[in-house]
Amino acid sequence: MARTLCRIFKGCQSICSLPLMKTRLHPSASVLLRTVCVRRMLTLPFRFSPKAQDFSLPNSSWGAEMRQLYEHYNSQCEEEMKGEEKQDWAWKRVPSYNRTLKHATGGVYLSKIYQSKARFFTRNIKEPGAAFEYVLFVSKDEQKCVCIFQAGHLLEGPQGYVHGGAIATMIDTVTVTHASVLTLLIMTANLNINYRRPIPLGSTVLIDSSLNKTEGRKVLISCKVTSTDGSKLHTEATALFVVSRLLGG
Amino acid sequence: MARTLCRIFKGCQSICSLPLMKTRLHPSASVLLRTVCVRRMLTLPFRFSPKAQDFSLPNSSWGAEMRQLYEHYNSQCEEEMKGEEKQDWAWKRVPSYNRTLKHATGGVYLSKIYQSKARFFTRNIKEPGAAFEYVLFVSKDEQKCVCIFQAGHLLEGPQGYVHGGAIATMIDTVTVTHASVLTLLIMTANLNINYRRPIPLGSTVLIDSSLNKTEGRKVLISCKVTSTDGSKLHTEATALFVVSRLLGG
Repeated sequence: MARTLCRIFKGCQSICSLPLMKTRLHPSASVLLRTVCVRRMLTLPFRFSPKAQDFSLPNSSWGAEMRQLYEHYNSQCEEEMKGEEKQDWAWKRVPSYNRTLKHATGGVYLSKIYQSKARFFTRNIKEPGAAFEYVLFVSKDEQKCVCIFQAGHLLEGPQGYVHGGAIATMIDTVTVTHASVLTLLIMTANLNINYRRPIPLGSTVLIDSSLNKTEGRKVLISCKVTSTDGSKLHTEATALFVVSRLLGG
Repeated sequence: MARTLCRIFKGCQSICSLPLMKTRLHPSASVLLRTVCVRRMLTLPFRFSPKAQDFSLPNSSWGAEMRQLYEHYNSQCEEEMKGEEKQDWAWKRVPSYNRTLKHATGGVYLSKIYQSKARFFTRNIKEPGAAFEYVLFVSKDEQKCVCIFQAGHLLEGPQGYVHGGAIATMIDTVTVTHASVLTLLIMTANLNINYRRPIPLGSTVLIDSSLNKTEGRKVLISCKVTSTDGSKLHTEATALFVVSRLLGG
C-alpha cells in the first residue's frame, strides 16, 4: 500500500521532490507547495479514468452509522466550485479506486494481461457491503486523518468478528494515506498493532490517524480504531514510514 | 483470526481445558494429551461438512514453486491409514475452509442470513489463484509452522506488489494457527511487523513461524517471510498471543 501512492506520483517530479524542497524553502512557500500537492493527491486526476468508480462515495450497503458519520465529515469538506475552490474547509474526502489505469515501474515485470486483472486489495470485491466499505477524510492541516469503516461479512476471522489481518489492512491503508499526504514518496517500515477488543462483523468503526512526529526521513503515525462514538477502543497501532532514498538520499 | 480456532474448540471442553491441565499433569501425560489435541485441531472434523472444500489442497492456479514446496512438505507428512495413523511424520498439513457450518457464541448477535453469508477473510474469493493461495504445515514437535503462500493479482497494494495488509493478514493467519496448536484458546494481543522488501504479485514466498517463548499466559511467536529459497527476507514479525481468561484465570 505504501508504495501505491508513491508510484502514482512518480511521474510528477515537482511534487515528489517536495520533502527535500521543504528543507530549503521558506516555510510559507513550503506550505503553499504542500497545499498544491495535497490537492493533487486528493483528486488523483492523472492515472484514473474519468469514468472510474470512486468507491469512497455512499452506496446502498452503507448503514445508518456509516452515512451519519460520512455526512458529518463531508459537510465540513471543501465544496468544489466551477474552476475555483473555497478555501475554508476543515476536511477533504479522499477518493478511492480499485485499480490504476497503468502500472508504473513496480509492475513492469508483470504481463499486461496480469496487470489488467490486478485490483487494489481493499477494493477487490465488487458486491457492495460484502467486504471493506470505507471513506477517508484528511484534515486541512494534515495532522489528522479519519476513516469510517464498515466491515462486511467476507472479512470474518473469529466467528462473527473481523479478521485481525483485515484490521491491519485498514490501519495500513489509513496511515499510509496520511503519511503520503505529509511526505509523498514513502515506504512502510513498521506496523505495530495492539488488539484490544474484537470488532463485530457488520459494524461501523472510526479509524483515527494522528501524526506523532517527523524525524529526518522518518514519519511516525499513531492510529486508533474505536466505536463510532469513541467509547470503545478496539485496536491501537503505530506506523513508521521512511521517505524513499530516491528523495531522502 | 485468533478467536476463530478458539471458538471452533469451544464446544470441546476437554481440549479447551488442556493448557490448565498441562500445569497439573505429569509431562508425558501432557504431551500425550496435546498430541491428541493437535490431531483433533488439524483435522477439525466437528464443525465442517464432510463435503466442505479444503482450500489447502493444490489447484490449477498453483505455480511450479508452490507445487514443489507443497510436495516437499507433504512428502514428510503423516500418511492417513484406514482407522490408524503412522507415527513417524515430521509435518502435518493444516486443512483450510472458507467458513464454519455453525457460528458459535461470537456470532449470535448476527442474523442467521448474515451468518450464512460470512466467509473466512483469506478464503473469501472463489477464483483460484486470484487472491490468497496458501497451505500450512505444522511440525511434529510444534516448535515450527511453515506456510507456502502464492499472492494473487487481487492483493495489490503498490503497483505490482502485495498490499502490506495482505502480508499482515498472512502473518496473522500463520502465527495464530501455530499458537492455537500450542495453547488453543488464545487471543491475538500484538502484531509487530517490519517490512523489509516488497513481495511481487504472483510470486510464491515462504512464511516461517517459530515459537520464541511461553511465559505464563503469554505465547510469543516470531515469523519471517522469505523467498522460497530463503535468500531474500521480505518481512519479519513477532506475534504475541494471550491464553484466554476463560482458561488462564
